[in-house]
Amino acid sequence: MDDSVPRPIRSTFAWLVGASQILGLASVVLTGVWMGHYRGGFAWDGSAREFNLHPLCMVLGLVFLHGDAILVYRVFRNESKKNVKLLHSIIHLLALIMSIIGFVAVFDFHREAKIPDMYSLHSWCGMATLVLFCIQWVMGLLFFLFPVASSWLRALYLPIHVFCGLLLLVMAIGSSLLGITEKLLFSIAPTYSLFTPEGILANTLGILLVCFGTLLGYLITREEYRRPPNPEEESLSVHFKTLTEGGSPTTP
Amino acid sequence: MDDSVPRPIRSTFAWLVGASQILGLASVVLTGVWMGHYRGGFAWDGSAREFNLHPLCMVLGLVFLHGDAILVYRVFRNESKKNVKLLHSIIHLLALIMSIIGFVAVFDFHREAKIPDMYSLHSWCGMATLVLFCIQWVMGLLFFLFPVASSWLRALYLPIHVFCGLLLLVMAIGSSLLGITEKLLFSIAPTYSLFTPEGILANTLGILLVCFGTLLGYLITREEYRRPPNPEEESLSVHFKTLTEGGSPTTP
Repeated sequence: MDDSVPRPIRSTFAWLVGASQILGLASVVLTGVWMGHYRGGFAWDGSAREFNLHPLCMVLGLVFLHGDAILVYRVFRNESKKNVKLLHSIIHLLALIMSIIGFVAVFDFHREAKIPDMYSLHSWCGMATLVLFCIQWVMGLLFFLFPVASSWLRALYLPIHVFCGLLLLVMAIGSSLLGITEKLLFSIAPTYSLFTPEGILANTLGILLVCFGTLLGYLITREEYRRPPNPEEESLSVHFKTLTEGGSPTTP
Repeated sequence: MDDSVPRPIRSTFAWLVGASQILGLASVVLTGVWMGHYRGGFAWDGSAREFNLHPLCMVLGLVFLHGDAILVYRVFRNESKKNVKLLHSIIHLLALIMSIIGFVAVFDFHREAKIPDMYSLHSWCGMATLVLFCIQWVMGLLFFLFPVASSWLRALYLPIHVFCGLLLLVMAIGSSLLGITEKLLFSIAPTYSLFTPEGILANTLGILLVCFGTLLGYLITREEYRRPPNPEEESLSVHFKTLTEGGSPTTP
């Protein structure tokens, strides 16, 4: 953060970012422990152990990395926008690769076990999230990293890109929660209501994901944590408002 | 909307509000059809028919009415703020009453059927949503409708109140989706994967709820749909920024 931002705001921001990283990492670790300790570990052999890669990759890719890719605009708010954009798209690329591995794992497992695909609400929401995430990533590349669109079109698209980024994070967390419930009811239905350790661990994972999303949403939407306007960058970049809009430039 | 807002923006806004109402009402109707047609209807006798009131009340209260209570600030953006606040809190009161009936229905059903309470992720998320919703409602009354707090405290709390309102809508929709998945896996697990009409209807309900939340989120967060600053109101109300903050006043 720059020196013009008061010290209490800078300090609160740093603590909140730290807390979000602890929550995000704890979610990834807890998913690993759940699948590794309670569900038999990981493999790439079409078995249930291949399925176990699905939750781990989705939480790591579509939740944690995706969330952090958005957060870089706040954390590196005083770095060159070009570098931050590059970092944003690299982390998103990693998130995309993770998500695709996670999707292949579950479809591969279903095929081997002859389980039908795409019938549950979890699968509908999860597939919608991944498809929209791919579209968002390609649009981001075309509009902002290697801009092929005209600048008025980019200015028009920017707030939609920002809104969709947060929406996709929420959808990814919602889909993860649906997946947790599905997995628990398929695996430990008879003992889930007895408050067994596996059920409590998975529920806690769900709550951690909600807390991670809440904190990210707060950090991303608070006005005082936004990137300060840079006249030099503004003159070159897409960050202007059309004549129909008032207020300050919408900065991702 | 006032005349200073360009016609295309006004027209888009009206269409989006109309679409959100269709999505919200369709969600309530679909929940009624699911519980009424496929799950045996409604009663208040401790049976599964009493449970059926739970999804209906929650979708009507914590999702549809809660969403519309937030939306009144955009739809009636040129009415007196006092009247809009009153409408906002009355709709929230209705939402709260509905939610409490829905909660009593499920606990009553659990007690009669000797089913343990509060073990699932759906129940954890749902209970967190209701408790936070109650706190948010009481805080709203104390801070804005019958203001007892000092104006600097109210100004400090306003953006948190606005953020929490949208967060609670997202949490309510997420909890509903978890409830849909739970109910389907408890009721039609053997036929769910065969794409039976009940499964498809319930999944469609989930998707409608996501679309309702997305549209509401868009309408609530877009800068051009915000309430225009009113100098007369601003001088009397809590809507000022502290010296540490820049930009335009944060209006709910």
